[in-house]
Amino acid sequence: MKTLSENRCFGGVQGVYSHASQACGCDMTFGLFLPAEAQDGPVPLLWYLSGLTCTHENAMVKAGAQAWAAEQGIALVFPDTSPRGEGVADDPEYDLGQGAGFYVNATQAPWAAHFRMWDYIAEELPAALDAAFPVDLERQAITGHSMGGHGALTLAMRLPGRFRSVSAFAPIANPTESDWGRKQLGAYLGEGADWAAHDASLLMAAKGFDGPVLVDQGSEDQFLDLLRPEALAQAMAARRQEGAFRMQKGYDHSYFFVSTFMEEHVHFHAEALYA
Amino acid sequence: MKTLSENRCFGGVQGVYSHASQACGCDMTFGLFLPAEAQDGPVPLLWYLSGLTCTHENAMVKAGAQAWAAEQGIALVFPDTSPRGEGVADDPEYDLGQGAGFYVNATQAPWAAHFRMWDYIAEELPAALDAAFPVDLERQAITGHSMGGHGALTLAMRLPGRFRSVSAFAPIANPTESDWGRKQLGAYLGEGADWAAHDASLLMAAKGFDGPVLVDQGSEDQFLDLLRPEALAQAMAARRQEGAFRMQKGYDHSYFFVSTFMEEHVHFHAEALYA
Repeated sequence: MKTLSENRCFGGVQGVYSHASQACGCDMTFGLFLPAEAQDGPVPLLWYLSGLTCTHENAMVKAGAQAWAAEQGIALVFPDTSPRGEGVADDPEYDLGQGAGFYVNATQAPWAAHFRMWDYIAEELPAALDAAFPVDLERQAITGHSMGGHGALTLAMRLPGRFRSVSAFAPIANPTESDWGRKQLGAYLGEGADWAAHDASLLMAAKGFDGPVLVDQGSEDQFLDLLRPEALAQAMAARRQEGAFRMQKGYDHSYFFVSTFMEEHVHFHAEALYA
Repeated sequence: MKTLSENRCFGGVQGVYSHASQACGCDMTFGLFLPAEAQDGPVPLLWYLSGLTCTHENAMVKAGAQAWAAEQGIALVFPDTSPRGEGVADDPEYDLGQGAGFYVNATQAPWAAHFRMWDYIAEELPAALDAAFPVDLERQAITGHSMGGHGALTLAMRLPGRFRSVSAFAPIANPTESDWGRKQLGAYLGEGADWAAHDASLLMAAKGFDGPVLVDQGSEDQFLDLLRPEALAQAMAARRQEGAFRMQKGYDHSYFFVSTFMEEHVHFHAEALYA
């Protein structure tokens, strides 16, 4: 585990670290905010998964989450969105390859060699955090934005018992029916694969989440047609899923939207983490 | 006035606008956050002046100020830090020329043609804001970071009655005695000019500020030798200046520091603006 930077932040430390990832076959960088309470022992951990084109850095500097995590004594981890570096496959388009890992394990060439973000987020990074930092893996929650909202919802539903609560900002909600999804699932998993295992709306219909779910979506989001929030809202309501789907009037897809509702998301998770 | 972007943010609007600046002889871009209350009439205005290398964007996306400004019903303006564009002089170093206007009116070649940031911030931009947006120029306050802290303090002290309160994050506090200052004042104003008029510590010693002053400085700031906070702290105490100089243990020069204390700065200004 290599320390790239550490900055005092809201009484805690905002660090950036890198480590050799077996899952991704390359070095992976992540941000980790540890609140002051981490000096006295393990603290609950809230995952923030980022969207297309993002690195570990975007949310770390723009989402304003540390203010609220510090208040609640919660750690925040900001993973990268894909493997990176020379020798890692890429695509000229912003929505495939580096910066667009989609939180799946690729099985298809040229992606299979490195693009194993599901295993990285679900298995390798939690173990690495547990070994190196005072985080309490018995108390985890997860959120994310756009592609990261898709990752948060699919991980939470497919790893029952792992996360006490899940939330999402403008998630890619129904990728099997969207150009933000069919393209990536086709490239990474192939045409015949189980795409439904990576579709939040289909997972919600099939299994739901054993805990509270909070989804915020801006009504003026420029990507509404690609996100398909209506599919998730329908599935949540049909399942009687505990939680809330909120349409926030006038907000778009930007971090100005994410930061606006971050306080409520962190409070939402804190309630579950300290229940 | 040209609208470059507008995003809903904390119930208000974070806009980015550009306009033709006479002072700078080029188009200038700025960010303006208007809280929801601006729909009902003019709101108080808090200026945020940025540091070396910054544009209008850095603080707008990283300082987390909108959360607190929205809570208090205060507008925020984020000016750029220099004239820019083709035909505008520049320097290969980060600390002179574009991105490093230092909030002075240059009199020396090649800078004099465009680098008139004092006039731009003190005269032209306030008038432009007043004409186009519901801001109440009777209720203004000012803050800034690093070079912008220098700008905030010098503008506040040299424009008595303009600002009800002034604060600064890690300001360049004593530029006439620092390589962050002598180089720029020499280049922009020339060797024989009145540098003292642009030195916050000397202005504090000579005139002070008729209102409260709040200065936050990180104890682990990597630029302490260039910032010279001790000169300002001494001058504030010697003058019996109303206000506080705070040394924040462990914090550095980054926006992780700025965002940590932003809530307190906005509250500090709100008290003066609503007094």
